[in-house]
Amino acid sequence: MSSPLFVLATIIAKPNHARQVSDAIQLVLAPSRQEEGCYRYDLLQDNSNDHRFVIQEQWQNKAALNAHMQTAHFKALVESIAPLANIDVAELNLLA
Amino acid sequence: MSSPLFVLATIIAKPNHARQVSDAIQLVLAPSRQEEGCYRYDLLQDNSNDHRFVIQEQWQNKAALNAHMQTAHFKALVESIAPLANIDVAELNLLA
Repeated sequence: MSSPLFVLATIIAKPNHARQVSDAIQLVLAPSRQEEGCYRYDLLQDNSNDHRFVIQEQWQNKAALNAHMQTAHFKALVESIAPLANIDVAELNLLA
Repeated sequence: MSSPLFVLATIIAKPNHARQVSDAIQLVLAPSRQEEGCYRYDLLQDNSNDHRFVIQEQWQNKAALNAHMQTAHFKALVESIAPLANIDVAELNLLA
């Protein structure tokens, strides 16, 4: 059985776009959490930088994550925030 | 009741020091998880960079985190990996 896959998507909104970015991300939380193999999909905000967000995700495996990235709601999110933010996505495994 | 506090500690080991850094972090996982108010304390490794680690933490509140940072095992960890890695710690709140 493959080990779960963790994703940390760090999204830094451009000046004055924090609210737009946060609102756009919140639209995908519910549909993402209902996807097959989604164990966790939480939106966090940095306490020292209100323009810095992290989506903390946990997926059953890489296939579940790949399916997520093909969904309409994910593609719409990327399209809407790409011009408003710098995005860095890391895929990680649980070491211990 | 205060909302839980999330911490993402990103630790990038200097070249050839990944194993030492990972071993040092693993020493504090068990004692940290047993601390009052510790909900989560997991060590993740980036799939695309084996020198990049993230400790994914969740605490009952800021007081629990502060107490953690005063423990002997945490202080020993910081002392042992400070010369071997670049460390960035973010405190975050759950937005949605």
